[in-house]
Amino acid sequence: MSKTISTLEKVAGNGVINRRHLLGLGLGGAGLAVTNSVIAADNSLSFETPSWSRQPGPGASGYGARSSHTEHLQRLAGNPNPVYPGGGSSRSPLQHLQGTITPNSLHFERHHAGIPDIDASRHNLVINGLVRQPLAFSYDDLLKYPMVSKIHFLECSGNSGALTSATPADGTVQSLHGLVSCAEWTGIPLSILLDEAGVLPGARWISAVGADAASMGRSVPINKALDDVLLALYQNGEPVRPEQGFPMRLLVPGWEGNLNVKWLTQIKLTPGPSNFRDETSKYTDTLADRTSLQFTYPMGCKSLITSPSGQMALDRQGLYQITGIAWSGAGSIRHVEVSADGGQTWADALIESHQSDRALTRFRIPWQWQGGNAVLQSRATDDRGNVQPTRSALLAERGVINRYHYHGIQSWSVVDSGEVSNVYV
Amino acid sequence: MSKTISTLEKVAGNGVINRRHLLGLGLGGAGLAVTNSVIAADNSLSFETPSWSRQPGPGASGYGARSSHTEHLQRLAGNPNPVYPGGGSSRSPLQHLQGTITPNSLHFERHHAGIPDIDASRHNLVINGLVRQPLAFSYDDLLKYPMVSKIHFLECSGNSGALTSATPADGTVQSLHGLVSCAEWTGIPLSILLDEAGVLPGARWISAVGADAASMGRSVPINKALDDVLLALYQNGEPVRPEQGFPMRLLVPGWEGNLNVKWLTQIKLTPGPSNFRDETSKYTDTLADRTSLQFTYPMGCKSLITSPSGQMALDRQGLYQITGIAWSGAGSIRHVEVSADGGQTWADALIESHQSDRALTRFRIPWQWQGGNAVLQSRATDDRGNVQPTRSALLAERGVINRYHYHGIQSWSVVDSGEVSNVYV
Repeated sequence: MSKTISTLEKVAGNGVINRRHLLGLGLGGAGLAVTNSVIAADNSLSFETPSWSRQPGPGASGYGARSSHTEHLQRLAGNPNPVYPGGGSSRSPLQHLQGTITPNSLHFERHHAGIPDIDASRHNLVINGLVRQPLAFSYDDLLKYPMVSKIHFLECSGNSGALTSATPADGTVQSLHGLVSCAEWTGIPLSILLDEAGVLPGARWISAVGADAASMGRSVPINKALDDVLLALYQNGEPVRPEQGFPMRLLVPGWEGNLNVKWLTQIKLTPGPSNFRDETSKYTDTLADRTSLQFTYPMGCKSLITSPSGQMALDRQGLYQITGIAWSGAGSIRHVEVSADGGQTWADALIESHQSDRALTRFRIPWQWQGGNAVLQSRATDDRGNVQPTRSALLAERGVINRYHYHGIQSWSVVDSGEVSNVYV
Repeated sequence: MSKTISTLEKVAGNGVINRRHLLGLGLGGAGLAVTNSVIAADNSLSFETPSWSRQPGPGASGYGARSSHTEHLQRLAGNPNPVYPGGGSSRSPLQHLQGTITPNSLHFERHHAGIPDIDASRHNLVINGLVRQPLAFSYDDLLKYPMVSKIHFLECSGNSGALTSATPADGTVQSLHGLVSCAEWTGIPLSILLDEAGVLPGARWISAVGADAASMGRSVPINKALDDVLLALYQNGEPVRPEQGFPMRLLVPGWEGNLNVKWLTQIKLTPGPSNFRDETSKYTDTLADRTSLQFTYPMGCKSLITSPSGQMALDRQGLYQITGIAWSGAGSIRHVEVSADGGQTWADALIESHQSDRALTRFRIPWQWQGGNAVLQSRATDDRGNVQPTRSALLAERGVINRYHYHGIQSWSVVDSGEVSNVYV
């Protein structure tokens, strides 16, 4: 190994190392790579040929599945609630994922009446209300329209709500923050369909309603609807998954997940918001004085260290790659800083973006753990200048009743035993 | 609809329309969107509530599946061959995919002895040969190493080989060209592991061998191995699929698919290439004089129109969005031109790239079909100035014996009935 730990430039307290060392940085100094019995003294190999190398396996197939040896990677789904059939959510296993694209089978879910099994050939999308000409579209009609592809995150506005509790919950990054995912969405710019129906001057909002048994509905201001909203038909290249709204959903870039109405069957143009059940009983921000902020749509500038993270255990002293995800509902991530000393000193992480506008961005930075205590934090800044706030600053501004739109800095404590846990600092 | 076909700027022969109209372009003029019985004269809705809206569906789950209504989207797998057990391939359904990310279950496959069912906890990766210190790594060791994420295409060097036949094959874009896919790969820069083993001065190549029953092996020059090759552990965020090499594969950006050795178990550093079976019996380019080019690694600058494409049928005159994919093993796609008159006139398509360096890029352009005959073509240019050649120019240069590394311009004929087919022009 050409580099040793002693030659690496420390750029913040408690072992944070300059990101420029990231790609030339082995772990040999940590003694991870071992020369064991498979390599003989004369450099020849002596291991027994494993069973899977001795005879041909099954051939190619129509639609692939993952390895049976990776089936422990699961979304975390809540227990069914008999008084709320089909209601609930499942959370992405962020601690086990890499990159920025969430595979479709592990994208987080949030349902209000379960997943309808829709036959696309019998599904209609209606655009009516304050339009010159009400229109109804079949699925096959819509497949013929011009489409665009964008990588965007989706985040439930209730994500990370546990961090508003008075004492820190024991949890993983999945259980605490797993209601965020990211995909390449392909769909029809909604403006094309609204233009075809003809938006009348009095139309200031659209009311979008799903075909699920909850008739989940949300109101979206017409300016946003005409700007960058998609009628999404594809998710990472294939038709949108049932859990994500098959055959079609709204995709409202950067705005809270619930607005991205799934199983979309109606868009009604209206003079004002429709005050649907799910925009009055839920998804409003109740402040300390018990008034509520309604329609706080863009998700905050936010980041999470996904490794090391809650309930992991560091098994050795030495070099680690701290990695995580960052995103902002307002635009692109400009930089992410990492601290290993609870926010006293910070260093810039390396960020990797394929499409950074309201998409997950991955960050990485080397860190040397020499035993002892550390508090790992990340802090994102977006291209509008928004800086991710500390938990205490966010709660001081918004009070502790509101559990929506939490985007404070996450603190992971590392103690001498190597155990990692959620803490407040 | 604010725009009508007559106001759209034609920029090439036979109905190719300026790409700037793409995002403001409805299809209303074509009469697709219909006001049917679901919308009453008073703008109210009268359709019957479908069964799936009447009662809650199943709730959230650990690992999702696609809709049963989309199961016709399948890879096209060859028939099993009893004298070549597990050998063969399956092709991505490019005509049904959108965007640039191929979902893991639909990524093309190519196997030489089927898919080994590897228990990662019993798998070793050995680096030996001309190194200072031979090393063996377990899967768990490797998960601790620094990683990077990149979006890259993979293409089998035999892709599109049917286009070298004397008469044009009747086929779809899937059956003719489906051995190309694209994913976000996350892995360890191979240079880190080679650096840790210590490359000795005489090492000019690496010999990579898989744990499948074919012991599939390929040689890669050391300069490439130290440049941008990854030991890939993740594919679109989750562990690499068995079909793609679980638990690990080489990812050799831009170079022919076969080099990206799956189920990787050994990297031996050698003074020269190892002349493995699969780099002598296959994957060489036999020229007209019967000599062969060996080690022609980077895939060519290439594009394909995926819609409209072979065996589709246009069902009406009017506006269409021509769309397809482009890529180059040498770098990024700079532009893609589209012709509707068999290459007499060309117009620039809109290109969408999330990460354009050796990744699939999607292109789109509007086209007005007024009936009659058309020949649709696309022509890619990369940032090194490479221009996708015509079929006849490519065959004139390389002869007709070689079936590898075909990257000529694809011609789709549209006839008056609307039927689309593969033709040579």
